[in-house]
Amino acid sequence: MSKPRVAVVGYGVIGQRLADGVARQGDMELVGVVDIAPTLSTRALRELGMPYPLFVVAPEQRAAFDAAEIPVSGVLDDVLGDVDIVLDATPGGVGRQNKQIYQKRGIKAVFQGGEKNDIADVFFHGYANYEKGIGRDYLKLTSCNTTGLIRAVDCLDRAVGVERVIVTIVRRVADPGDTHRGLVDVAQVDPVPSHQALDLMTIMPHVEATGLLVHVPTTHGHIIHVIATLKKPLTKEQALRQFEDHARIRVVRIKDGFNSNTALFRYARDLGHKRADMYEIAVFDETIATSGREFMCAINVPQEAVVTPETMDAIRASLEMQTDRLEAVGLTNRYLGMSPSHAQVAPVARTPEPAATGAGR
Amino acid sequence: MSKPRVAVVGYGVIGQRLADGVARQGDMELVGVVDIAPTLSTRALRELGMPYPLFVVAPEQRAAFDAAEIPVSGVLDDVLGDVDIVLDATPGGVGRQNKQIYQKRGIKAVFQGGEKNDIADVFFHGYANYEKGIGRDYLKLTSCNTTGLIRAVDCLDRAVGVERVIVTIVRRVADPGDTHRGLVDVAQVDPVPSHQALDLMTIMPHVEATGLLVHVPTTHGHIIHVIATLKKPLTKEQALRQFEDHARIRVVRIKDGFNSNTALFRYARDLGHKRADMYEIAVFDETIATSGREFMCAINVPQEAVVTPETMDAIRASLEMQTDRLEAVGLTNRYLGMSPSHAQVAPVARTPEPAATGAGR
Amino acid sequence: MSKPRVAVVGYGVIGQRLADGVARQGDMELVGVVDIAPTLSTRALRELGMPYPLFVVAPEQRAAFDAAEIPVSGVLDDVLGDVDIVLDATPGGVGRQNKQIYQKRGIKAVFQGGEKNDIADVFFHGYANYEKGIGRDYLKLTSCNTTGLIRAVDCLDRAVGVERVIVTIVRRVADPGDTHRGLVDVAQVDPVPSHQALDLMTIMPHVEATGLLVHVPTTHGHIIHVIATLKKPLTKEQALRQFEDHARIRVVRIKDGFNSNTALFRYARDLGHKRADMYEIAVFDETIATSGREFMCAINVPQEAVVTPETMDAIRASLEMQTDRLEAVGLTNRYLGMSPSHAQVAPVARTPEPAATGAGR
Amino acid sequence: MSKPRVAVVGYGVIGQRLADGVARQGDMELVGVVDIAPTLSTRALRELGMPYPLFVVAPEQRAAFDAAEIPVSGVLDDVLGDVDIVLDATPGGVGRQNKQIYQKRGIKAVFQGGEKNDIADVFFHGYANYEKGIGRDYLKLTSCNTTGLIRAVDCLDRAVGVERVIVTIVRRVADPGDTHRGLVDVAQVDPVPSHQALDLMTIMPHVEATGLLVHVPTTHGHIIHVIATLKKPLTKEQALRQFEDHARIRVVRIKDGFNSNTALFRYARDLGHKRADMYEIAVFDETIATSGREFMCAINVPQEAVVTPETMDAIRASLEMQTDRLEAVGLTNRYLGMSPSHAQVAPVARTPEPAATGAGR
Repeated sequence: MSKPRVAVVGYGVIGQRLADGVARQGDMELVGVVDIAPTLSTRALRELGMPYPLFVVAPEQRAAFDAAEIPVSGVLDDVLGDVDIVLDATPGGVGRQNKQIYQKRGIKAVFQGGEKNDIADVFFHGYANYEKGIGRDYLKLTSCNTTGLIRAVDCLDRAVGVERVIVTIVRRVADPGDTHRGLVDVAQVDPVPSHQALDLMTIMPHVEATGLLVHVPTTHGHIIHVIATLKKPLTKEQALRQFEDHARIRVVRIKDGFNSNTALFRYARDLGHKRADMYEIAVFDETIATSGREFMCAINVPQEAVVTPETMDAIRASLEMQTDRLEAVGLTNRYLGMSPSHAQVAPVARTPEPAATGAGR
Repeated sequence: MSKPRVAVVGYGVIGQRLADGVARQGDMELVGVVDIAPTLSTRALRELGMPYPLFVVAPEQRAAFDAAEIPVSGVLDDVLGDVDIVLDATPGGVGRQNKQIYQKRGIKAVFQGGEKNDIADVFFHGYANYEKGIGRDYLKLTSCNTTGLIRAVDCLDRAVGVERVIVTIVRRVADPGDTHRGLVDVAQVDPVPSHQALDLMTIMPHVEATGLLVHVPTTHGHIIHVIATLKKPLTKEQALRQFEDHARIRVVRIKDGFNSNTALFRYARDLGHKRADMYEIAVFDETIATSGREFMCAINVPQEAVVTPETMDAIRASLEMQTDRLEAVGLTNRYLGMSPSHAQVAPVARTPEPAATGAGR
Repeated sequence: MSKPRVAVVGYGVIGQRLADGVARQGDMELVGVVDIAPTLSTRALRELGMPYPLFVVAPEQRAAFDAAEIPVSGVLDDVLGDVDIVLDATPGGVGRQNKQIYQKRGIKAVFQGGEKNDIADVFFHGYANYEKGIGRDYLKLTSCNTTGLIRAVDCLDRAVGVERVIVTIVRRVADPGDTHRGLVDVAQVDPVPSHQALDLMTIMPHVEATGLLVHVPTTHGHIIHVIATLKKPLTKEQALRQFEDHARIRVVRIKDGFNSNTALFRYARDLGHKRADMYEIAVFDETIATSGREFMCAINVPQEAVVTPETMDAIRASLEMQTDRLEAVGLTNRYLGMSPSHAQVAPVARTPEPAATGAGR
Repeated sequence: MSKPRVAVVGYGVIGQRLADGVARQGDMELVGVVDIAPTLSTRALRELGMPYPLFVVAPEQRAAFDAAEIPVSGVLDDVLGDVDIVLDATPGGVGRQNKQIYQKRGIKAVFQGGEKNDIADVFFHGYANYEKGIGRDYLKLTSCNTTGLIRAVDCLDRAVGVERVIVTIVRRVADPGDTHRGLVDVAQVDPVPSHQALDLMTIMPHVEATGLLVHVPTTHGHIIHVIATLKKPLTKEQALRQFEDHARIRVVRIKDGFNSNTALFRYARDLGHKRADMYEIAVFDETIATSGREFMCAINVPQEAVVTPETMDAIRASLEMQTDRLEAVGLTNRYLGMSPSHAQVAPVARTPEPAATGAGR
């Protein structure tokens, strides 16, 4: 059987990362990416020699790319005739319009957290409810914050059961490079409960959840204080082992220098990861505290890349590439070079990042 | 009986506010303030025509003030011969050295949160443990963060009893005007439990407390997410009433525009408060959530001024000006112009702020 | 003759300050302020016991104020029947619509920098072109940045003549309290020339000007590096004297602690100024450098309050209260408590700030 | 002849980048890197499988690395016996002590901008004074800011001659990942002239220079406003051509989205550059303005990586690998994958980045 063919519509902060993620999956094929106007992201494609073909949505959008000397390979319609599934990473609300096009063409699609839940047949998280996505046409991913949060909560839940979760989310308000939004010298509070808590309950209906969101002026990962009531007691050592065994969770120590969202970002730079991205959430060791069935810890959620693995899982589920949850996430992890913490001392050979094989420095 | 005479040693961010606080207490007398070198704070005194006499610690410190044309009225020794109690607001560690001087002269003193607990006979909070401070020679105030936190927890505790508290403190890392410390684009995590939780348990030993501290790049109030287990169920309406009846707690609504630490700061500016200071902590109405004995809310702690009222209380306790807790805090509140929220519609005449009577614009 | 009657339409960051400014002018009368919906600013009015009457634009806006228990004294139409001039401080673009109303009623008006220049008969700066505003019906003030810049350049120009100015403006991107705009971890560059340079040339057509604007994440004053070519040589001492003799310019020294925009803000707090406002721009002494006819210095422009004095001047010009420039600005300065630096050691009695006489703390 | 052998002492923000830079020079050999305690940087080396051997300065430093499971290959003394030149990237002041060790062993060394000038025989910039470094034992590089500034000024100088330069430097105050320094909501001004202007005059003694430094809270590149008086008139088109022909200068357009220091950082991420580094300074096209012999433009200096190319040049000069300036910088550029802007459309094959060949994702 030939590899499933995937296109990414919307080549912004998330779309870029999804495209790279697909390109690294040995059992999928990236057909191309679609955008509507020249941006830094598409200019970078050009400087790199167009590692992916670029398409526009409508023919009249070509002129601007021509002026920017960015090669265009065709229009959205061309792409849709050639793919099995679309990853839609357009700005919130646009996906809803695009869905009509996908439906008309009978193409499956995975939407991101910016869309409303009712756009999709299932609100999806690779680890927490993979089975629900199997064979479904339209999946919507959880947002970056919720994706990271659910990873940690699902990990505890599968170990000992989780009854209740209260979160305090210290949310970064902009991404690096954003010049159209931000806060200066402000910590802004939202009414409770935060949507992340509600979303968690949608994905994990057996858990009671609530929480507070505080927006703060940083561009790096969200910090979430997770306070959980478990079904059974758990020691700190047991919790650590659960987290260390999870390929998408990285246990780090403050005393080793991992003291902040930005320390994780810096470390990803030093690892030579493309775009200084980190797929894993991090749990700060010294913030884990347990007392009987009460548990708390702080996690870091790298907002730009964290949804990439779960989106790859979504393709696997929708296209029924794997019907076993662990097999599916295991393949995604392997292709993305993620392995449990205890395995990080001697990493095995990984699929090189796309840029590494191209004209990049 | 003549009014107790008070001096403030250390005229920085906190010392300034304590001096103004004392000057507004109708039943105390501010003898003067003490500092060691010209600063923006002492230059402002000069531009205002020296509303308070200024003293140096040692004679050789005069020259620098002379060069800055800031009048000096004498040395620390002169002050100590003339006062009943000192408010020591020097940088952390200096208070310990100063204590020896105060002891030699038989002068009582109140220290701030930067000193170690063992500097004092009692670790003090005006509302939570006033009685412990009565007649004691050396009191140490809780830090700004803890002072605000205890106000809220003590309020709930006196209403229905508090068993357990978990906090997430979103801490501002610098004060407005600081150019010697700060963070850029960082949310930094400390190991748990935070000292504020430990301090709360020292002051309120019947409460179990823990929590996480996250440092963020703002200069305005700390935001604390308070998650409490109460001894009896409490509805949101009941909680609101408790907070509204507390003269040092201000209930605000996000939908009214009070959505952040900086909104409170701006509001204090618009109220014409000196230095845009706010003595009250704020509780954000829409962040109060209750479920049986479980309670949570977010509060704002204006770090610069919040310790002023409790420090006035400490003078009252140490000098045995009042032996009744509510009488003492009530007097402090009245002189500082604080009254319960429900009384704010038609404020009564208040003691004018010192600057208002001077040469200030 | 009775005092001219003034209303302020738009009670936001600028409008509040203009209202207070008018209230302090001994020879004007503030009739009231106008706004369309409850805000922190109008809630503060209520908590202060309504020092100024508040009006709405349209009757249907009353309901929201009623719900917030903020007393409303009438509608815009009532105000316009009772005033000689309006200070329009509405958001950019709204002033243009309002102008039609003012014109219909034959009411003079002063607009702020957010409006286009063609809204007014004259683009006005109290010091630089007072004469042009005399008797005119519609004046537009320069923006905060330009107002501060022109103060410094006009001061040099009247002393020795200015041929050419190049500026680098390090612009604060939000005001304290703003939660709807900002930048995080960004220094953003605009194409040259900046509008401030163009505006300067409109007001001072004999000067050639250009410059660069860099937006940075702070909420306090703009810092402008002014590089000028003068008509005659000027020593640093001579320049200092010019600035020190100017009532709206404050010369400060970095070595005294005035090292930043935020140091000035902090100092204004310590001076007890209402809202921690500073009307004066500051020149940093150690940034003044001269070489023959070449001159450079850095100035601080406190963006919130800096336009207040020049707006008072605009009233004086439009209503022909004074026909002599120096007499006009001198009166404004006196009522606002501004005097040359060399006079600051022993300040004379000043008009107290409005809040100082009210119910404010 | 065998390749010159190079070691990097001090493996922090700069040292890491110098090590990678050397590893990419086809005609040099990186012998190893030296540090004194485990850091994020050395932990990343371990996670990557130790692409470079790591050495400690003193044997007693081994224990901490052993505890962190970071392999250590020996001590500084071992390294020095095996190299031709050391790149010292230790914190300011340490290099001076290290120099004594290097001298005793007769090893050449290149120091960074944090050291005092008198540590070296020559204060060096690859483009501006390569010849002065030829054969010299101890070279000191200009600081990041000055390195970038001189690139632009030297480019203009070699084209038409530069008489005078005035700069306004909007300086980022911390690097991404820094949690030990920073500013919040502050723009801080230094006395003039800034050291960068003085340093420029040391390197380019025929140019008169002065300038102002403003510290702002960002972590990405410095923005410098360069205002120059040239010896001959230059049109904007001519200036653009000079910059575009320079392999270490990238001309970018604001209208294309390159509107800030952080846009450049984001673009480097999208290019897949290791650590999201950019070796080139950027000139913002729309900020170039000329008028006869007057010239101005704004440049972006990526503070972390900008000194890497010039440091490679320094090795070439000190070891007399090339005696021709253009040949030397040309080789550095080629190995680092830098070419003039007009050549960027179809980039030639470049030396891959080290991490791309290793175990990185």
